[in-house]
Amino acid sequence: MDAAEVRVIGLLHPGEMGAAVGRCLTGREYEVIWASQGRGEATAARAAAAGLTDAGTIAQVARQADVIVSICPPRAALDVAAAAQGFGGIYVDANAVSPATARRIAAVVADGGASYVDGGIIGLPPEVAGSTRLYLSGEHAGAVAALFEGTALGACPIGPEPYSASSVKMAYAAWTKGSSALLLAVRALAEAEGVEDVLLAEWERSQPALAERHRQAAKSAASKGWRWVAEMEEIAATMEAAGLPGGFHHGAAEIFRRAQP
Amino acid sequence: MDAAEVRVIGLLHPGEMGAAVGRCLTGREYEVIWASQGRGEATAARAAAAGLTDAGTIAQVARQADVIVSICPPRAALDVAAAAQGFGGIYVDANAVSPATARRIAAVVADGGASYVDGGIIGLPPEVAGSTRLYLSGEHAGAVAALFEGTALGACPIGPEPYSASSVKMAYAAWTKGSSALLLAVRALAEAEGVEDVLLAEWERSQPALAERHRQAAKSAASKGWRWVAEMEEIAATMEAAGLPGGFHHGAAEIFRRAQP
Repeated sequence: MDAAEVRVIGLLHPGEMGAAVGRCLTGREYEVIWASQGRGEATAARAAAAGLTDAGTIAQVARQADVIVSICPPRAALDVAAAAQGFGGIYVDANAVSPATARRIAAVVADGGASYVDGGIIGLPPEVAGSTRLYLSGEHAGAVAALFEGTALGACPIGPEPYSASSVKMAYAAWTKGSSALLLAVRALAEAEGVEDVLLAEWERSQPALAERHRQAAKSAASKGWRWVAEMEEIAATMEAAGLPGGFHHGAAEIFRRAQP
Repeated sequence: MDAAEVRVIGLLHPGEMGAAVGRCLTGREYEVIWASQGRGEATAARAAAAGLTDAGTIAQVARQADVIVSICPPRAALDVAAAAQGFGGIYVDANAVSPATARRIAAVVADGGASYVDGGIIGLPPEVAGSTRLYLSGEHAGAVAALFEGTALGACPIGPEPYSASSVKMAYAAWTKGSSALLLAVRALAEAEGVEDVLLAEWERSQPALAERHRQAAKSAASKGWRWVAEMEEIAATMEAAGLPGGFHHGAAEIFRRAQP
């Protein structure tokens, strides 16, 4: 595929991250379409604010788009790909899934006659340049990267290996979110054992950054932890498939499951 | 017990940490005795350098000492307590064990007629004041703390709860060593997936402290990781007993098991 031939890009779905990515593309004068069917009002408002056009259904998106970018909760990624059956362009899965899940998604995509590009997003929803990277891998990674040229989203093609982008995302989040969950578990342990004050005093003396880091982790977990449960399970599966212990991230999934306010 | 009545302190065993703690006590003109039976030459050399007196056997230490301080690998802590049967003074277990293991040790100690004080050491072997704390809990915690007055080891009595000192140690090490193990696992994952260079470049951009932290963690794990396997299992047991996930630290135990060069 040549990026110059791309006119219409499907964005499934315009959540907080997806809408920001869509806005990068509308900023480059691509027509970016989405599917309102089954989505809520908040999503519609975000899509409108980002300049996205409602195509109605995923089937319509599949019919009209040259490229589809899937940005959704990891648990939904396979279903979104299946719903886009009939699509024949380039399908970018940019979700936080294991290489094994990415492989299953790629098979569904290929079955439908489309080309799969693996993606992984690191950073906050892209508002300003330099804040966020979209790692891309696979045969058409370079063409997809070209769509984002000059936008706030730094697209990084990392080679032809089909699932490398997912591996990067898994490894990166394995530390950032895994260590946050560990910190939440540690403080919960101190609290359960009645030694929280002593631990906090010792942290203040020898680990002065931890109390603030805990505060941030608790805040993020309370507002977004529910989104991370499935991501942690995807990371645990990635660890286990690589012969490494899955326990860190099974534990992290459990901590985020409990963190919901 | 009154600290003023203490003359002879048994130190089991003068490893790196134990010898440094022993030296704090010989510096206060206590007679500090140890048991060479079954110990190697390196231990004997450390004991001599710290000014410790060889009593020969643990039974002799139990006979002569007013206070025994146990500083040994967590897996050996219960056996050391059992070997000191017949001791009637104050027995301080300063090892990295779970509150449940501490309770088992306390029962053995009480069976023999001694009083149990729970301890937990945080920091490096104490050479200079301010580097290391010995948390102490239980009825005689204050009396044991008094033995270390003015030494490089900051003794902190934290109350009468029998196993709080072990809880503090578990919670503290749960983060320090648990997060090191997580970081080692994360980088091993990136390596296994062939994306180590990409991860390191992303870290350099968005997590600039991690590469150096990984270097330190790998160095420590290679030299000392074998000592931490049992400690991680003690922490996992502590987490599980508190209704929290044990997986983080079962994973950490596995990582340290593999880190041995």
